[in-house]
Amino acid sequence: MDNARFDEALTAIRMSPIVSISEQVRKRSLQFTKETGKQFLLFQRGEIDFPTPRYIIEAAKRALDGGYTKYPKSGGEDGLKDAILAKLQSYNRVQGLTRENIVCTYGGQEALQLSFRLFAGKRGAGFAPCWSCVLENFVPYSGVDFVEVPLGKDFSVDFNRLEDVLREVRFFYLNSPQNPTGKVFTEEEIRTIAGLCSRHGVMLISDEAYERILYDGNKHFSPLSLPMDNIIGAFTFSKTYAMTGWRLGYLATRDTTIVNLVKLGDYTQTAGVVTFLQHAGREALENRDEEAKALGQMVQEYQRRRDVLYDGLKEIEGIEVARPEGAFYLFPNFTPMIPAGMNIPQRNLYIYEKLMANGIATVYGSCFGKHFGDNLRFSFSTTPVEAIRDGIARMRRVLVR
Amino acid sequence: MDNARFDEALTAIRMSPIVSISEQVRKRSLQFTKETGKQFLLFQRGEIDFPTPRYIIEAAKRALDGGYTKYPKSGGEDGLKDAILAKLQSYNRVQGLTRENIVCTYGGQEALQLSFRLFAGKRGAGFAPCWSCVLENFVPYSGVDFVEVPLGKDFSVDFNRLEDVLREVRFFYLNSPQNPTGKVFTEEEIRTIAGLCSRHGVMLISDEAYERILYDGNKHFSPLSLPMDNIIGAFTFSKTYAMTGWRLGYLATRDTTIVNLVKLGDYTQTAGVVTFLQHAGREALENRDEEAKALGQMVQEYQRRRDVLYDGLKEIEGIEVARPEGAFYLFPNFTPMIPAGMNIPQRNLYIYEKLMANGIATVYGSCFGKHFGDNLRFSFSTTPVEAIRDGIARMRRVLVR
Repeated sequence: MDNARFDEALTAIRMSPIVSISEQVRKRSLQFTKETGKQFLLFQRGEIDFPTPRYIIEAAKRALDGGYTKYPKSGGEDGLKDAILAKLQSYNRVQGLTRENIVCTYGGQEALQLSFRLFAGKRGAGFAPCWSCVLENFVPYSGVDFVEVPLGKDFSVDFNRLEDVLREVRFFYLNSPQNPTGKVFTEEEIRTIAGLCSRHGVMLISDEAYERILYDGNKHFSPLSLPMDNIIGAFTFSKTYAMTGWRLGYLATRDTTIVNLVKLGDYTQTAGVVTFLQHAGREALENRDEEAKALGQMVQEYQRRRDVLYDGLKEIEGIEVARPEGAFYLFPNFTPMIPAGMNIPQRNLYIYEKLMANGIATVYGSCFGKHFGDNLRFSFSTTPVEAIRDGIARMRRVLVR
Repeated sequence: MDNARFDEALTAIRMSPIVSISEQVRKRSLQFTKETGKQFLLFQRGEIDFPTPRYIIEAAKRALDGGYTKYPKSGGEDGLKDAILAKLQSYNRVQGLTRENIVCTYGGQEALQLSFRLFAGKRGAGFAPCWSCVLENFVPYSGVDFVEVPLGKDFSVDFNRLEDVLREVRFFYLNSPQNPTGKVFTEEEIRTIAGLCSRHGVMLISDEAYERILYDGNKHFSPLSLPMDNIIGAFTFSKTYAMTGWRLGYLATRDTTIVNLVKLGDYTQTAGVVTFLQHAGREALENRDEEAKALGQMVQEYQRRRDVLYDGLKEIEGIEVARPEGAFYLFPNFTPMIPAGMNIPQRNLYIYEKLMANGIATVYGSCFGKHFGDNLRFSFSTTPVEAIRDGIARMRRVLVR
């Protein structure tokens, strides 16, 4: 592409490798099925296979019939904001916010993109492994210099290493429950991280997309529940309500300067979030009975899948895997299975390609930063239990000598 | 606001003065009605008072019921793109485009914002008067150095002056039918402008938001119908289908480098346009019978309003006004009515304040750049004929001595 004519930051964005993996899968799966008679097993996607709950669909239809089709109010409709505030108070235990602390956005995506934009050209940091969209999209688009702070092999936090980095950055990106590891940071970890950010004048950008996808009684802790001004929370309806295609989310912060800037950014980019969708979002949050029912069924099914996938992978010698506490990803390590003496690009794709050739699609670890090239991400958000069992059996055959 | 901590470009955006005018109106209208028993007359808004046509609402509801609630395809769904291509071919007489030339966006707004972003930090130009959102939002957000090329008092183009500017810029923003003048640039004017852009290696960003709002048999001419690569067309569903709150639009260009960059920008900002809305957009475009009926009624009503407003203003001595050929704005000049010897800020608000004090809301000309401070914008998109008659009578009393 002849990009030299155009904005460097825009030309520096890369389409997520996950998209190109999915394109590869489309091509290879036909061939694979023809040759083997078997299905390609899809562990690469972040999509959700549940439908949006009926009560939210009906709320959107009512809003359409009600004529909520005019320009949205800048920053979000009051009704939606009030529902968000009630949810932040009851679920996230966030006190003392008002409508002036909320901006409605296109998914968590726009909330995060604009949060990064606040620090255009500055330095920020986040844990590795890190959601690929941060690295491929938000970082280059905002021209941010992004430092990866590696978690341990067991995804533990090295607080000394973290503090060293926090001395030199303007913001820190935290994602809990975390994509791609399924790690749920504990309240204690998050209190410590937020405290360190506060001490060093660092803005904490807290991506809470998976806040409701939790297993084994794990609890989500929101940094915003701490009485600090240096916290931006980015939230989405996508995962909680199987609303990926609705592009509905919001940002919350005590810092009203940030609220005003993000409002201006959102207005400039899109003129605001589709009006009748905001009415549906309000219903999604306020109808607690329907919410509990839909979310309960979804998380129960995810937990079944996680159990089968985790138990299966754990039994395969040479795979090191942590049990996901939330979200719908596993991020096992394959180091013992990768031949020594390979160069990095070869290592990065070795297991990935082996699985791909046998009809198993995953995402290679180098999509999530510099430190976990020997890992693969398995998503179980669209993979039924039977397919997971097939996948485990197939991996045994392919990987175990 | 303590903005120094954050991105300069973001902090340079100003909320549109039209928003603050509307806020003023909200406050003053209560007082005014209490004191006078009369209604505040609203000529300041770009909103539309027609509902979205029923057939489009129903299409959105069908798409919701059909489960089109998953992540959208990057750049837009094929079905919508095909409908857009058919419309570009039949209405805009644009030949030879394929799906690879289209990006679905959040209104014309995002198409334009990303088009400006392509030229971040570079120099661009456009005619004055110019849509306020360009000046207040797109220009500062993209850090573009924007040169205003003034139209004549009668809104004619000085091609020599234009060419001088085109030698020194990377893009030119053209809006026809034009906000705030209601001018529809002729085919000949547009051919000349596009030719000059081509000669000087300038990208023509063509904002065609009002392409279907035309009076007296005036024809819209799309630069994209010319066989040139240096043209970006930005289109929206907002005005044609009374879909302002749906935030649906698209960008079209022969330059596939631009298509790819705008796709990446749209993906980074929002992860794409709400999936089921794209299905409704397809129906909006493809159901030609319903489209003709809805659009016909709407334009007929606008034309009635325009006639009453134009005829009324023209009869008032000291107001110079051009008959709008499209869009739903008039941009009369009040120079003879403004006392000599006032400084610029006083001049800019003199007539505006006089009307405001008498219950007539308009937008002052300095919102549209540096060259038309003695003008006011009157919108008739939400003002019924009876209110327009009242407004004319009131202006006669207030302005004519």
